[in-house]
Amino acid sequence: MSDEKKTGRERAEEWWQTSIMEMRPGLIRLRGYEIQDLIGRVSFPAMIWLMLRGELPSEDQAALLGIALGAAVDHGPQAPSIAIARMAATCGVGINNAMASAINVLGDVHGGAGEQALSFYGDIAAAMDGGTPLAQAVKTRLDRFFAEEKGYVPGLGHRFHPVDPRAPRLIELTREFAARGVVGGRFADIAGAIEAEVAARKGKTIPLNIDGATAVIYGELGFPPALTRGLFVLSRSVGILAHAWEQSQQSDRNKGPLPREWLWAYTGAPARPFPNDTE
Amino acid sequence: MSDEKKTGRERAEEWWQTSIMEMRPGLIRLRGYEIQDLIGRVSFPAMIWLMLRGELPSEDQAALLGIALGAAVDHGPQAPSIAIARMAATCGVGINNAMASAINVLGDVHGGAGEQALSFYGDIAAAMDGGTPLAQAVKTRLDRFFAEEKGYVPGLGHRFHPVDPRAPRLIELTREFAARGVVGGRFADIAGAIEAEVAARKGKTIPLNIDGATAVIYGELGFPPALTRGLFVLSRSVGILAHAWEQSQQSDRNKGPLPREWLWAYTGAPARPFPNDTE
Amino acid sequence: MSDEKKTGRERAEEWWQTSIMEMRPGLIRLRGYEIQDLIGRVSFPAMIWLMLRGELPSEDQAALLGIALGAAVDHGPQAPSIAIARMAATCGVGINNAMASAINVLGDVHGGAGEQALSFYGDIAAAMDGGTPLAQAVKTRLDRFFAEEKGYVPGLGHRFHPVDPRAPRLIELTREFAARGVVGGRFADIAGAIEAEVAARKGKTIPLNIDGATAVIYGELGFPPALTRGLFVLSRSVGILAHAWEQSQQSDRNKGPLPREWLWAYTGAPARPFPNDTE
Amino acid sequence: MSDEKKTGRERAEEWWQTSIMEMRPGLIRLRGYEIQDLIGRVSFPAMIWLMLRGELPSEDQAALLGIALGAAVDHGPQAPSIAIARMAATCGVGINNAMASAINVLGDVHGGAGEQALSFYGDIAAAMDGGTPLAQAVKTRLDRFFAEEKGYVPGLGHRFHPVDPRAPRLIELTREFAARGVVGGRFADIAGAIEAEVAARKGKTIPLNIDGATAVIYGELGFPPALTRGLFVLSRSVGILAHAWEQSQQSDRNKGPLPREWLWAYTGAPARPFPNDTE
Repeated sequence: MSDEKKTGRERAEEWWQTSIMEMRPGLIRLRGYEIQDLIGRVSFPAMIWLMLRGELPSEDQAALLGIALGAAVDHGPQAPSIAIARMAATCGVGINNAMASAINVLGDVHGGAGEQALSFYGDIAAAMDGGTPLAQAVKTRLDRFFAEEKGYVPGLGHRFHPVDPRAPRLIELTREFAARGVVGGRFADIAGAIEAEVAARKGKTIPLNIDGATAVIYGELGFPPALTRGLFVLSRSVGILAHAWEQSQQSDRNKGPLPREWLWAYTGAPARPFPNDTE
Repeated sequence: MSDEKKTGRERAEEWWQTSIMEMRPGLIRLRGYEIQDLIGRVSFPAMIWLMLRGELPSEDQAALLGIALGAAVDHGPQAPSIAIARMAATCGVGINNAMASAINVLGDVHGGAGEQALSFYGDIAAAMDGGTPLAQAVKTRLDRFFAEEKGYVPGLGHRFHPVDPRAPRLIELTREFAARGVVGGRFADIAGAIEAEVAARKGKTIPLNIDGATAVIYGELGFPPALTRGLFVLSRSVGILAHAWEQSQQSDRNKGPLPREWLWAYTGAPARPFPNDTE
Repeated sequence: MSDEKKTGRERAEEWWQTSIMEMRPGLIRLRGYEIQDLIGRVSFPAMIWLMLRGELPSEDQAALLGIALGAAVDHGPQAPSIAIARMAATCGVGINNAMASAINVLGDVHGGAGEQALSFYGDIAAAMDGGTPLAQAVKTRLDRFFAEEKGYVPGLGHRFHPVDPRAPRLIELTREFAARGVVGGRFADIAGAIEAEVAARKGKTIPLNIDGATAVIYGELGFPPALTRGLFVLSRSVGILAHAWEQSQQSDRNKGPLPREWLWAYTGAPARPFPNDTE
Repeated sequence: MSDEKKTGRERAEEWWQTSIMEMRPGLIRLRGYEIQDLIGRVSFPAMIWLMLRGELPSEDQAALLGIALGAAVDHGPQAPSIAIARMAATCGVGINNAMASAINVLGDVHGGAGEQALSFYGDIAAAMDGGTPLAQAVKTRLDRFFAEEKGYVPGLGHRFHPVDPRAPRLIELTREFAARGVVGGRFADIAGAIEAEVAARKGKTIPLNIDGATAVIYGELGFPPALTRGLFVLSRSVGILAHAWEQSQQSDRNKGPLPREWLWAYTGAPARPFPNDTE
């Protein structure tokens, strides 16, 4: 329909167009499927996949997605997101508000590591698509990383865990799914080659962490890097809810970061009179 | 240990105590289970259950939880939460921020209907525990509702759908799980009795809606009413993410609620000069 | 215009109607005033007043509003809102996101005390309007409070400060403005009478706190109770921004609530094997 | 004190150290000043300055800051932030939550233009500090912009207003303050030179917008670019509160972006049966 012919309502409905969901009175379709055909026949991870990708996954694909989502649900109250959820739950706001304040901080530093890792893997995969062998592609990418980007190699190392117990288990499962042909296994190879090359250069292994391991799975399943942060939000939301809920069952009010009888160190200007006061 | 004997560190670590997660270098336990024992062996809904309830569900219980979570993932861009996610995604913030702004509005009116429905069912279940027959318990609770609380009966009716297609399917599945002994079926009975009694009083059926139907499942599975809002957040987060992601793939910047060339009606004070200006 | 005659665009623009702001290309009016007539001629607190109330305040009214806004800007990093702002600032999100996560927790418990205090004062003022003398109106309201509501008398007492240094100064200034006829002084009288009556009943003074004192000013200036929480958000946003900014100048990443080398006490289920594993 | 000698409490209090605020029972100092010495003697913008900068401004400096803060309070309900505040206010959340969801979207695209403008001015100012004349410094920076960065020149142009009525008034006032020696006027010169050079290159004037004009003032007053987004949040929070408040006085529930009787255009997969169903 030409723009001139559109009514105002058509123009407004077009403004909010979406390919995700269709609705009429008594009818809800997700990606073309009637909602009542989906309910009870696809798992929750399969529903997540359908909503984000537009097509239904196989049962095996959905299972592997669910594994990655389940692995990262919590990292305890020292994580800022979890601490924020618990403090918020004592301030007289709804549990959805406590979750929102917490999810909001899963940013570049707190929640973005998986995205960076998958982008890094993707650069190597692209070089391999161009004919470069894996080992060489990894060397070249790491050369660039150490020359230009510096810092921590995406997906490797943990400030707390010498070996993050989630990572080897996730890679083991990825290998099993690859052996059954569910996924190709290429991202697991890439992550392993990065780990090996970094170990060779540094003289010690810096093992794959949870972000690197879930990035392997999300990459195997074909998710783009930018979506992995969204998947991490879905995953960590579970821990955020569990901690907000546990906290809300207790009687604290306005829970601060330190025990109530403690303060903070003041490091600023010394006490001084207001200008021109002669005190 | 007596309070006097505690070191500062012990006092601070106690301030953040939790029964959800235990961590030491190289070790993560959720509710007592090693994380690597859980990964690959429990579904994502089972992980959600474990985190919130402290014990592992049966496979059937986890499946029923997943069904409820999958049913409410989206209701389209006319829902304020979805519209907010889409607008936020065009403002130069992270996808986690877009999700947070959206989840934040799943409050008493937008996300709280399930909680209200389950509380209502719980009142009737409590009366039944005290020996009142179902039909009488429903009548008594509805009498109180119409006398004191008024408004919409929790869990019934929808402003858009004559029959919400999700609700009968969810109740059908609940009955199947009850027939297999996974759940008792009592909350499905209660919701059905409420629907019937309201129909008898009003002379027309006001059918169960999605909030009422998911509340039946959450009640059957033993979740307290206040947690159902958190479960709804987990569910709707999927649609919020899908819409934020779809929007972010387009080129809009600062997407407003109406087509860009439209404004809003101004209904305030007429144009006036600044006081004492002689214009 | 009748509804049937409206075009779609008119209907949509009506959906977003507002009395606050009028806009056309090259023209912005706030509450009927051209924006360029306001800029440079009204103070920032006067602009806040105009936006919220629809009319310009006198300079004295604006000054008193500014005093209340300035008094509550910060209460240090043990306040959950400030701690959240600081932690968020280390997670790789924008300063607006850090502020949002913090403002979000200024709920019924953390930010709502002023609203409760002003409602309490308002009940007494209403009784006085009906002819009850101040002392009697205070007694009656407190009788009801101690019989039915219990807890802390709104606006009195502080868990940390024996006397909150902000409160007496704010009341002193309110008295000065009342002496000059800017405000009536009635809410200061009410707060003082409540303090005195509680002291008489308890045998010790529980002094007015910052929430009670700012509620006096907001009441004197004619703000409804529900708006005082919004005013508190504007005020505390300043401290939230200052702390988020200070934190962002430092190098911390993912700042948790406790020193990095500490954990939390685990109080949950003991370590246990996955069901049916024979470990 | 050496680290080994610190008690746990000292270590924890050091973890939350700040130079902004000092507190002891009955004592609150901001930047070294007793709070009761500040209340009633510094304006609200001066308090904002003190909190962010550490020192008190002159009255004139505070006035100019207040002018910039007052100028950007609102841009109507087509701005995503304002629309979000209004929708949130109908969802059963607190006014602080509605404000948080809205402030949260003042990101790189919606709220970041002032920061980009001031950085741009700062590059030119730095060249001038190195001896380059203004006109040359502007040319060089614009050459780089058009060669490498492209897009819209920071601070210039508006998609809606041919001339934004706020900008010329803000520059006029900056000139007045510069004439009185309150500020140097250099950033006004820079912005003017950019506008002139772009006009010369494009053959038509693309006038300074509100972000460019407030960036001039914040630059004149010595604020770093990254803080201007925070100042914009403080400013726009006023409009966000006004709109959330106005909306909350009405009876809408779950206000969506379009009139209730409208939907959205569906552009996705056609209706299809669940795989392997023979419908």
